[in-house]
This record gives sequence, structure tokens and C-alpha cells, in this order.
Amino acid sequence: MASKPSIPKGTRDFSPAEVAKRQYIIQIIKNNFEKFGFQPIETPSFENSETLMGKYGEEGDRLIFKILNSGDFLAKANAAHLENKDSTKLTASISEKALRYDLTVPFARYVVQHQNDIEFPFKRYQIQPVWRADRPQKGRFREFFQCDADVVGSKSLWQEVELVQLYDTVFTELGLKGVTVKINNRKILSGIAEVIGASDKLIDFTVALDKLDKIGEDGVKKEMIEKGIGAAAIEKVQPLFNFTGTIAEKIEKLALLLASSEEGMKGVEELRFICENVMKLGLASAILDLDVTLARGLNYYTGAIFEVAPPKEVAMGSIGGGGRYDDLTGIFGLKNMSGVGISFGLDRIYLVVEELNLFPETVTATSKALFINYGDAEAFYALQAIRKLRAAGIKVELYPDNAKMAKQFQHADKRNIPFAVIIGEQEIASNLYSLKNLVTGEQVSLDFEGLKNAVL
Amino acid sequence: MASKPSIPKGTRDFSPAEVAKRQYIIQIIKNNFEKFGFQPIETPSFENSETLMGKYGEEGDRLIFKILNSGDFLAKANAAHLENKDSTKLTASISEKALRYDLTVPFARYVVQHQNDIEFPFKRYQIQPVWRADRPQKGRFREFFQCDADVVGSKSLWQEVELVQLYDTVFTELGLKGVTVKINNRKILSGIAEVIGASDKLIDFTVALDKLDKIGEDGVKKEMIEKGIGAAAIEKVQPLFNFTGTIAEKIEKLALLLASSEEGMKGVEELRFICENVMKLGLASAILDLDVTLARGLNYYTGAIFEVAPPKEVAMGSIGGGGRYDDLTGIFGLKNMSGVGISFGLDRIYLVVEELNLFPETVTATSKALFINYGDAEAFYALQAIRKLRAAGIKVELYPDNAKMAKQFQHADKRNIPFAVIIGEQEIASNLYSLKNLVTGEQVSLDFEGLKNAVL
Repeated sequence: MASKPSIPKGTRDFSPAEVAKRQYIIQIIKNNFEKFGFQPIETPSFENSETLMGKYGEEGDRLIFKILNSGDFLAKANAAHLENKDSTKLTASISEKALRYDLTVPFARYVVQHQNDIEFPFKRYQIQPVWRADRPQKGRFREFFQCDADVVGSKSLWQEVELVQLYDTVFTELGLKGVTVKINNRKILSGIAEVIGASDKLIDFTVALDKLDKIGEDGVKKEMIEKGIGAAAIEKVQPLFNFTGTIAEKIEKLALLLASSEEGMKGVEELRFICENVMKLGLASAILDLDVTLARGLNYYTGAIFEVAPPKEVAMGSIGGGGRYDDLTGIFGLKNMSGVGISFGLDRIYLVVEELNLFPETVTATSKALFINYGDAEAFYALQAIRKLRAAGIKVELYPDNAKMAKQFQHADKRNIPFAVIIGEQEIASNLYSLKNLVTGEQVSLDFEGLKNAVL
Repeated sequence: MASKPSIPKGTRDFSPAEVAKRQYIIQIIKNNFEKFGFQPIETPSFENSETLMGKYGEEGDRLIFKILNSGDFLAKANAAHLENKDSTKLTASISEKALRYDLTVPFARYVVQHQNDIEFPFKRYQIQPVWRADRPQKGRFREFFQCDADVVGSKSLWQEVELVQLYDTVFTELGLKGVTVKINNRKILSGIAEVIGASDKLIDFTVALDKLDKIGEDGVKKEMIEKGIGAAAIEKVQPLFNFTGTIAEKIEKLALLLASSEEGMKGVEELRFICENVMKLGLASAILDLDVTLARGLNYYTGAIFEVAPPKEVAMGSIGGGGRYDDLTGIFGLKNMSGVGISFGLDRIYLVVEELNLFPETVTATSKALFINYGDAEAFYALQAIRKLRAAGIKVELYPDNAKMAKQFQHADKRNIPFAVIIGEQEIASNLYSLKNLVTGEQVSLDFEGLKNAVL
């Protein structure tokens, strides 16, 4: 291989510093998932194709990575599709397995497959990579981690209350103060559709309404009319054009607006319960906001819809999202299993924490001290101390070769190792260690206990 | 989908209890990797096919999972191979990417690709899944984790010394006392080949010798002669048939036996250095043993060879292995980069720890207490306490629905949650919590601090 090797586009190598930072975020998410009673599961990286295909729409089917059957796959290939060179149709006969596209469908499959072993309500979390054959671009990868927490088997709105708290707790612990947890409800959107008299116009309506800040009330109304929404209908939802105030005030506006829609009023009641309890229990640093334009996964969610925006000083899309879906496992034949869940966007959270300089300096997998190697006798003496320091949980290492001193110190420097331990004949004779602080340059002579305390 | 969904053969779902146990093992391996100065990297799940193909032999090429190109893959398919229905040859033109088969080749690729950013010697660890299209059988999976620690860029034998210590430290911390770390050296094997006058017979020789316990000296010699090894050659290595004693004694026997082989003597010196220093530094619970029949990856390793056998009371193959390879990155064009590393066999370690009942009872992601739900007022009161307990790092949860009491207690029981917290009107009025120990049945009334201390 003459040229330097590379990796497939849309994938990434992670250096030690990057892994340490990613693990720092993942660990905080994981710890809080568990504090909130969620339990981890893991599912295989690839599923039977029939488990995944048809679950994400046509676009999704196209973006699923398929695994070529092993061995003589052409022997079982569909002759007609092969003859016609129909790649799409041929796929099913030469590929039985596909890489996980998200964590939700595999979770639904898991619940149905293991339903007799699961104690419901089942609170599970899952932190694993997913793969999508999307066109790679800035911030969009073909392999990325999802961090999901879901509850299945309970319709209790206390779950929604706790999920908002979970967002608040995680982002507070990450030091990301001032994230906005936006909440909406699918039933509110259905109610609006009812009121404007056209459920097929709902997406056009919310998309237009979302531009209120940018193009103003007249601009929005103009766009709505262009999309075929009648002036009378727009008049009915006039309060949405001045949808400000506290959450309580917004809920009262919605209650007036959607009074004629049974489903809309159910959405109002759900929102009221969730928001009131979240606010009475209090949030540490997140801001709760009711956003009636929030419509992510419109065809998927049936109740609450969540999305998290980063602190206002950062220009970045949502860093989390989720909602309630009343029929999570129906696709695999298990009916009436309501689910509600949220997801954390690891890659974007990483970028935000990085931009705001919030990674603690201690987030590194680097050793605390490098023992300089002056030869085998000194190395042996060093390893006796190293063994005891490691037993005390301290990360330390020996430079493996008896290289020039400058090279060894340079190694510590380049690796950001804060201390060097120098052992020569004199130190061995007096049972001491010379500890050099590589930041200040200060050097002290210590016995083992002193050394241990200094690098602890 | 009428039938219950399933997963591809050779893959596994991991339940919460299994994930917790796997994480317990991984965490101990990871902590010790870092204590020994290794730093984590992660590489993509799939690599460009050219990175992997041809690196594991013909058998390996066959067992690599290939990813079908997205879109109209037949448009670029090789017409002749398609015409001839030659699956093997067609693969390259319809599949550009393949799933990682091990962690060593991606690591070599990483080192070469990022050589200008890496500070050598580079001690890296990597804990990620790999995939092999092997025939699934008991204990052999198509997706499994590898846990590797390697150093590149140093020929120092202190690395080998530390890697034996690393095995010792990890297995001691897992409570797996009495594992045997077997050590050999490729140069010893080369020396034996020289002495028996036929390097092409070396594998036959070591395979036969390995049966000494089972078929006795005469049986082994008979097999060797059948394989074409001359009686005179066998006579020369007679000491190997009575290869007992301490490691020091074994090394002296080898020194006599291989005196005429320069390479063999180099192996003796390496073994002597490693073993002497390991023994002088001391091992916590592992047993070091010199095993001249150890030849794993014969064509791969160039120096030390390691393999770890579980404690003798467990009938199971090796739970770890590794060695030195003088030209790790040569396959990608970077010469003279010596590497040495070891691997931990997660799945087998799991089985051994399980069989010996060594998983601590605390290894579980289950909540410490379930708050019983008597209605919204009680649930709200409960969540006020829950919030503070979680802030103190305690895993607690609220039963989401106001279901029958028996059902809620049963839920706690089935999930092995040790405590239930009962809150009724009386508790709210007196600002107290009734805590029921679900193992003993004992129930006490506590204030918040008392509750917190009880479930800490």
C-alpha cells in the first residue's frame, strides 16, 4: 500500500483526548439515566433486514447500510433482478442483515422478543452507535452514538415530568446552564389542525408560524395563504401570532383557542399537568418553554414532544429531543404499549461543551507522572514504586527505554504529563524519589509517602 | 410481522443484568489500562475494504463482513464477474467497506495515518466490538468485544514485564486468583526449529509436544516421527520431554539446549530478563509459567508470546493472549515500528467470573428504592424527595402509575429493588417517609435525612 491509509468518509477516528472527553459526557448521561431508574440494554450492531426495512420510510430504507451475505451470495440472488440490474430489488436476495439505523426500532424489537422476561413498566437506556448512509457534511456522520432513555408500559405523565428533570440534571452537571427544554404536544397540533379545518395543512402551518421572529406576522400569514390555508382559519388561531407570556399564560391561551377540539383540550390538560409539576418541583438550570411550533417526528409522536436548545450564546441546533408514542411496539405485533423517551445528541453536546470551554481540565486519560528511565537498575527501582502507586489507583508510567534525558522529558511534555520522577544512584541509595513539576520546573526530594501524596 | 421478531444468529441482546456485569469487567480492565499509562482510542466500525482485506489470510478475508455499496451498486459492478456469477470476485466492485475484524489492523492503520500527531512510544488501549462471519457455536459469536492494550515504538522488554503485571492486576481485582500467565518466545521456537533441523516441522513439533501430559513421552515421539521429524533431531531436544522445574530451571535447560542457535539464545535472554524481573517485582495472585509449547499466532509474533489460562478449577480455554510483533505497521508502509500488546477475552472472562460466583452483589443497575404511587399528591411529595436523593447520587424511582399496591410491590420484588418508600396522607402531614425493607419486611418511619442514610 503506497499511499497513506484512510477511513471511509463520514466516519471518525477518536484520539485519546477525544475519547476522554466523549467518555466524560457519556458517563454523566449514563449516571443520571441510572439515578432516574433507567437500566441499560445492548442490542446487536446488525439486525435482520426485515426488522429494520420499512420502519423509517423510503428515505430511511435507502440510508440503511446493508451487509452482503457471506459466501456465494450470488447463488441465491434473484435471477430476474440480477438480469434487470435492479440494485434496489436485488438487495433483499443478497443481503439478510443491516446495520442499526437508530436505537428505537431495535428497542421495540427487544421489548416484543423478550416481553415475557421484562417487568413492565420497563425503563431502559441504551448508548450505542448507529449508522446511516447519509451524505456526510459538517456535524453529520455515517457512524454516531445515540443516547436514549425510554419507558414503555405506562401512560403516566409523571414520566414526562421526570424526563424534563433528567434533561435539567444532565445539562446542569455538564455545566451547560441555560438550555431551553421546549415542550409541545401532538394533541395540541391536532387541535390546531381541527381549528384551521385542515389536518393536511398542519406542517405548512407550523413551518410558517416558526418563522414569526424572522418575517413577522404579515409575512407568516402571507405564506400560510400561499400554502392554501384560508383567511378565516388563520383568524381563528390569531392568538398564536402573539404567543408570548409565561407558560401558564400560554396554556390559558391554548385552552381558549382549542376549546372546540376535544383532542386539543386533552393536549392542553397534559401540557398543564407536566408544566405545572415541573415548575413546582423546580429546575436547577434549564428553562422550560412551551413551543407550539415544535413538531419533530410529527407522524411518530402521539403526546408530549420535547426538544432541547443549547444555551443562547451558542449557535447550534437542538442537542436533545424526544416524546411520547402510544404504539411503540405495534410494528412487531405487540399492541397497546405506550412509550415515552428522550435522546441526547452526543456529538452536538460535545461541540457545545467544547465551545464554552466546559470540559474540566482533569478530563484526560494521561498519566500523572512519568518515571524517567536511566537504566535497568533504576527502572527496576522505579517499577517497585510504580506498582504501589497503581495499587493506590494512581496513573503512572515508566519511560520504557533508557533514552536521552531530553527526549524523555520532551515525551512527558508532549503528552501533558504533569510530573516526572527522577531516580538515580543517589535516590536508590537513600530510598528517595526526585519529583519534578513539569509546569513550574520545581524539583523536590521525597520518600515514597511524600511522592504518593504529591501525585495523588 | 406475524411471528416474533428475532436477531441474527451469532449475535446477542444483553439484558440490564448482563450489561451491568459486562460493564463491571470492562471498567476494571479500563481502569487498569489507564493506571498502566495506556490511553484510549476508538476507530470506526467499518474500514475501507482495502485496509482489511488480505491482512488475515484467505480464511480471514472470507470471514470479514462486507457492506453493500449504497444506491445503484450494480451500475459499478464488474460485468464479467457478474456474468460468471463469481461472488468472491464480484465483491470488490459492489462493496467498498467492511466491518472491523479485529482491533490490531485498525490500530496499525491509525498509527500510520496519524503518525505525525502521535508521540511515541504510544501506549494505546481500545475496547470495541469486532465482527466475524464465523459459524456460530457455544462461546463463539459473530459480534464480540475485544479489549486490547498495545505499545508501539519501543523494543524495551520492560513493556513485557509490565504487561504480565497488568494481567495480574486485572485478574486479581476481578477476584480471579490463580490464573496462569504462560509465556514463551518466538525466538525460542525458532531456536528449537534450528536444533531439530527443520523450521517447517515446528508446528507439528509443538503440537505433538503439547500432548505430553495426555499421551506420554513415547506417544509424543511416535507422533513426531510420523510427522517426519528425525530421531536424531528429537534426541537433541530430549530435555523438552522432561520440561519441569522452576522457571529459572527451565531457562537454564533452554540455554543448554539452544546454545548452538544464536536466535534461540536471544530468546533465552529475553525470557530471562522478563521472568526474572516479573518475579523480583512480585505478582499479586497470578502464576507465571514458561510454556515452550505456546505458539499462538506463530507467524505473527516475533518476540514474547503470552497466553492466560483461567484458574485450574474452571475448564475453559485461554482468557487472554498477546505478544510482541516487530513490524506492526509495515503492512501500511511504516517500517521499524515494534509493538507489543495483550488482549483480554471479555466473553470468556464473564463466563469464568460467573461460574466462580465472583460478581459482587452490588453489580446491578437496579434502583435502591421504589417510591409507591398512591396518587398525584403523594407522587408529587415523593418526587420532591426523589429529586434530593438523586442529587446525592442515589438511584431511586417512582412507580409511574397509581396502580394497586400489590402490583407495585411485586414490581419492586421482580426488579430486585431492595426498598419501598410508602407515602400516604399521614406521612405528608408529618413530613415523614415509611421505608420498607423488602428483604426483611421490616418497616420504619423516617425523616428525610433518615431515609437518605438508609438507602445510601
